[in-house]
Amino acid sequence: MIIVMNPGAKDAQIEQISEHLHKLDLKIHKSQGEDHMILGVIGDISRVDIEKVKGFDGVNKIIRISESYKQCSRTFKPTNTIVHVGKVPFGSKEIAVIAGPCSVENEKMVHKLSREIKRYGAHVLRGGAYKPRSSPYTFQGLGEEGLKYLQDAAFASGIPCVSEVMAISDIDLFCKYVDALQVGARNMQNYSLLKALGSVDKPVILKRGISATVEEWLNAAEYIVNGGNSQVILCERGIRTFENSTRFTLDLSSVPVVKKLSHLPIIVDPSHAMGNRDLVVSMARAAVAAGADGIMVEVHDDPNNALSDGPQSLYPKQFNHLMKELHIISQVIGRGLLKK
Amino acid sequence: MIIVMNPGAKDAQIEQISEHLHKLDLKIHKSQGEDHMILGVIGDISRVDIEKVKGFDGVNKIIRISESYKQCSRTFKPTNTIVHVGKVPFGSKEIAVIAGPCSVENEKMVHKLSREIKRYGAHVLRGGAYKPRSSPYTFQGLGEEGLKYLQDAAFASGIPCVSEVMAISDIDLFCKYVDALQVGARNMQNYSLLKALGSVDKPVILKRGISATVEEWLNAAEYIVNGGNSQVILCERGIRTFENSTRFTLDLSSVPVVKKLSHLPIIVDPSHAMGNRDLVVSMARAAVAAGADGIMVEVHDDPNNALSDGPQSLYPKQFNHLMKELHIISQVIGRGLLKK
Amino acid sequence: MIIVMNPGAKDAQIEQISEHLHKLDLKIHKSQGEDHMILGVIGDISRVDIEKVKGFDGVNKIIRISESYKQCSRTFKPTNTIVHVGKVPFGSKEIAVIAGPCSVENEKMVHKLSREIKRYGAHVLRGGAYKPRSSPYTFQGLGEEGLKYLQDAAFASGIPCVSEVMAISDIDLFCKYVDALQVGARNMQNYSLLKALGSVDKPVILKRGISATVEEWLNAAEYIVNGGNSQVILCERGIRTFENSTRFTLDLSSVPVVKKLSHLPIIVDPSHAMGNRDLVVSMARAAVAAGADGIMVEVHDDPNNALSDGPQSLYPKQFNHLMKELHIISQVIGRGLLKK
Amino acid sequence: MIIVMNPGAKDAQIEQISEHLHKLDLKIHKSQGEDHMILGVIGDISRVDIEKVKGFDGVNKIIRISESYKQCSRTFKPTNTIVHVGKVPFGSKEIAVIAGPCSVENEKMVHKLSREIKRYGAHVLRGGAYKPRSSPYTFQGLGEEGLKYLQDAAFASGIPCVSEVMAISDIDLFCKYVDALQVGARNMQNYSLLKALGSVDKPVILKRGISATVEEWLNAAEYIVNGGNSQVILCERGIRTFENSTRFTLDLSSVPVVKKLSHLPIIVDPSHAMGNRDLVVSMARAAVAAGADGIMVEVHDDPNNALSDGPQSLYPKQFNHLMKELHIISQVIGRGLLKK
Repeated sequence: MIIVMNPGAKDAQIEQISEHLHKLDLKIHKSQGEDHMILGVIGDISRVDIEKVKGFDGVNKIIRISESYKQCSRTFKPTNTIVHVGKVPFGSKEIAVIAGPCSVENEKMVHKLSREIKRYGAHVLRGGAYKPRSSPYTFQGLGEEGLKYLQDAAFASGIPCVSEVMAISDIDLFCKYVDALQVGARNMQNYSLLKALGSVDKPVILKRGISATVEEWLNAAEYIVNGGNSQVILCERGIRTFENSTRFTLDLSSVPVVKKLSHLPIIVDPSHAMGNRDLVVSMARAAVAAGADGIMVEVHDDPNNALSDGPQSLYPKQFNHLMKELHIISQVIGRGLLKK
Repeated sequence: MIIVMNPGAKDAQIEQISEHLHKLDLKIHKSQGEDHMILGVIGDISRVDIEKVKGFDGVNKIIRISESYKQCSRTFKPTNTIVHVGKVPFGSKEIAVIAGPCSVENEKMVHKLSREIKRYGAHVLRGGAYKPRSSPYTFQGLGEEGLKYLQDAAFASGIPCVSEVMAISDIDLFCKYVDALQVGARNMQNYSLLKALGSVDKPVILKRGISATVEEWLNAAEYIVNGGNSQVILCERGIRTFENSTRFTLDLSSVPVVKKLSHLPIIVDPSHAMGNRDLVVSMARAAVAAGADGIMVEVHDDPNNALSDGPQSLYPKQFNHLMKELHIISQVIGRGLLKK
Repeated sequence: MIIVMNPGAKDAQIEQISEHLHKLDLKIHKSQGEDHMILGVIGDISRVDIEKVKGFDGVNKIIRISESYKQCSRTFKPTNTIVHVGKVPFGSKEIAVIAGPCSVENEKMVHKLSREIKRYGAHVLRGGAYKPRSSPYTFQGLGEEGLKYLQDAAFASGIPCVSEVMAISDIDLFCKYVDALQVGARNMQNYSLLKALGSVDKPVILKRGISATVEEWLNAAEYIVNGGNSQVILCERGIRTFENSTRFTLDLSSVPVVKKLSHLPIIVDPSHAMGNRDLVVSMARAAVAAGADGIMVEVHDDPNNALSDGPQSLYPKQFNHLMKELHIISQVIGRGLLKK
Repeated sequence: MIIVMNPGAKDAQIEQISEHLHKLDLKIHKSQGEDHMILGVIGDISRVDIEKVKGFDGVNKIIRISESYKQCSRTFKPTNTIVHVGKVPFGSKEIAVIAGPCSVENEKMVHKLSREIKRYGAHVLRGGAYKPRSSPYTFQGLGEEGLKYLQDAAFASGIPCVSEVMAISDIDLFCKYVDALQVGARNMQNYSLLKALGSVDKPVILKRGISATVEEWLNAAEYIVNGGNSQVILCERGIRTFENSTRFTLDLSSVPVVKKLSHLPIIVDPSHAMGNRDLVVSMARAAVAAGADGIMVEVHDDPNNALSDGPQSLYPKQFNHLMKELHIISQVIGRGLLKK
């Protein structure tokens, strides 16, 4: 950590900061620049409250050198972490695919879709039972019934399943039915929920907040890991920008960026960002080419009558074709798809 | 609602959509443009799932004419809603001021600050006891103890108090101690929390999410109001943009925009966005000039030693000076400050 | 075009608008909704000034149905346009690659790099001679001398070359030396320059402005095409967002979006957005997987001593490896690289 | 400037950087942190190409301590610069107001408006003659004829006038007719134009680019000042964000930020950002309360029939009322309006 003092900062001001940092067992290295005194802070700065130090008189700015997250950083653990959803590994050499409907609408549809995606090579079934909808007047999900159908359908196809949890009070319920709990973009900084997931013995798929920087995202993961649950899979799902030809802007560069900064696996969900199935296919291919450890896509056999997010769901046939393309693209970059 | 069909959309496609909408008791008005068939949808569209209709074959785009929120809209209720925090009205002709420390750090400081802000004319005391911090390693607040100190200090000064709630399980506790519950920007789309606050008999101050559009913000308010609690105060606190000379970009235009769209009161918190006390003063003045029903600012008598957000807290003297300026600015635009 | 009137709009207001539009030979189709009168406008609306119509009393909002650009739209010309830079086609089934140094630094380096990129399969040489730099104190390019070196080096390798033009007064000079003129992101809405390029008989590579929507970008292309020059290649190079782990956010979804809306070829330049060579490789692969008609990358044989943008330039060896990967990825999606 | 090396950077790498910087007469101060070697660079770094240094092997990141602009910074010149448009001072204690139509539409209207705004207290007349329009098919301005009408109208009212210049070749023409040349947001990084304006003997009003950071904006101003023309007035006009209830998001916090960083005057144009006259009034008041040295607003006596930007133009009566409010608000903060 580097503290840049204002031009003409007084000795007493520097002294005040030094004292504060010494109490935290940190060493200070002073260096006088042309205009500014620069203080290099040496030691474990994880306990320093940077906002607080910014408040000291005479401070111009503070620059972090090391990351604010710790256990999630590649510095802390240089080798890739492999997270298992059921028996499916995420973060290994091979790429894993999660597919299924946006919402679990009824028992029959989720069974049918589970069989189809499994046949075409998907490894994990997804399906929403509790839906975060921007309006209180739209379909909010089937609730526990939906989770039950999801579990049954996944079991019948011999694959694990994931679903989004929105409230702490639902966590125990989810643990009965699903193999991984998903935290949606809107809850990425719901710290109470993150803390609660820290003591769960199931993997967590943590979607990136729609306006979260990569750093904030890794800090959100740190809440879960620091709570004791190191099975976190990051999921890029698009950020909010000024561009309105798609619903969100899928930030595929976050994939190689996260790979550099963290040992956690990262997957990409192009469905919500694109809002249109043709674009989803293009971006799913691009995600794998960019180095993602997996993708998550919505598939629906009758998107016209889907209860939510129809236009972005792939037809099963499209999904089948996509899987064949991903098979080769992943090999080009030295990886490959996980076996069915 | 208007549905624009693709050029060359087939009759069967239009028929399919019409049938779906007729089931919802809606009428369709067809109009053939140069290239596109346009369907005007007439009736109560609040139950229409727009994403679903987008999914029908042949649909090019859908345009909402009326707002997606209902009870929060000015169409629904043309007169301003006045929300009382304790006995302090928000949304009346006069402007109300909330002030206090970012965090309740100890009993003494919050008592001292409460007396000071009250003396200079503030109407409500603020103070955080449960803090949403981006890193799990920084100060997370005093918890219930903090709420207790806050309540005592406010009581001693004869003013009401507000604090931020982060978890559903804490709501009952908060109701014992505070006069209004604040929902932070990071939880603006935590729909479980919003629903729970819908059945609380205390006002809610709903901060705008850092990347929420005004429409999403009003929809979040709709969750609370639809749950039965119509006492919602909106609070602009800055949005995330590319500009990095301030922490967030305070979107003051949201004030007149919200005033037009909704009957709910709107206040502005310039402290978090600016991150620097000199800028806070400028923007507090600007907020009142722009038409805000109130402001919320952080005040700290020893910001250098604040446990959180020191650099953005006003010195009591600055706050005193600001109040005098607001007194006149609010009169210029035909309003005035609430009496002490 | 659809005009939504305010609730309670008066007949006289509707009459005023109708008269205005009738003068432009447009027909009006009225449709009374629950709250709003809706006017459908039928005919060639390219001459309508939408901002002006928004200004009429009683107008609530205006919704465009057709695109604001015309000659660049796929509706206007359904088949892909192929633009030739020298003899190299952009927009055909095969993918074309532009490579070279950020800046032409001296004669020797550009000759050496031209030979290398040609050997590894690049089809066009790039190199800046006039540089748009955010600070007036940094290297601004070699000017005409640089263009001369670039042309000589390209000629010696038997490939065409492109460079960025910044001023109308330089256009004639560029036409003597280069096979295509590039318009940089900062000049995408420099309409005087765009108009001047409309009468040039060389292809134009039009980079997307750092905060331009896809629609604005296509409108900028329309300026060139409408001036008489239909040889426009669009180039995605990253947009500005809040994320700061990369210099810009590469919006790869713009590739399939543009393909849908326009017949013009679109390429991707990942170098400037990423600012780091490892990320450039990932995103170049992703760009081709997403469906780009070509890519443009910076290559430098001694990036440590590059006069500009060193860290984002690929080493020739990396470029060689990337070309082999692109060869296969492009085949997976049914395309392939152009022959050397 | 601080250079942070990668963990484990080699001595040879540090040596290479040191040599490079020594050649530029800079001194290096080494400081070994926990993980990273930190190099403090001391001396005049304006000639250092930071991108280049980032390209050296072993470099992790580079942090600027001093600003990249120089002559525009308050460090360079601590006192406010006052720029005169005709005889009207911008940047003094008193606030100056520029008003007029978006476009000069005909001789009569600009004369009439000039008289009206002058009567209500405006100090400078504005009016566009060359319009940057996103579509080539909309009204592009009257050209020289428009400038002539503008000058005549301003002269008849005894006030100076400003208009936007878009091309280098038009600069001489503008100098014959106007008292200040405006650079529009779309040309803020048109460096050729900025350089050309550096040798003009008239003030330049430099609008902020729609996605320009404050730092880039000040660097754009530096181009003009470095060219020899120190008469630059900055103009905030809104930035592009995700919010779409207004056309742009007016960033009023840029006012106090610029005041801190630079000695140049800063004014605010709320008209283009808001796109709606009611919002313009609120934001104009807020701009003055935030500390702007002036405002620029569009006024039109018949906005319904304006050839461009009608809905955002104030009615003369509204403008009159606004001026009275600004009169008092400016006094509250110790300033006041310039006399008529």
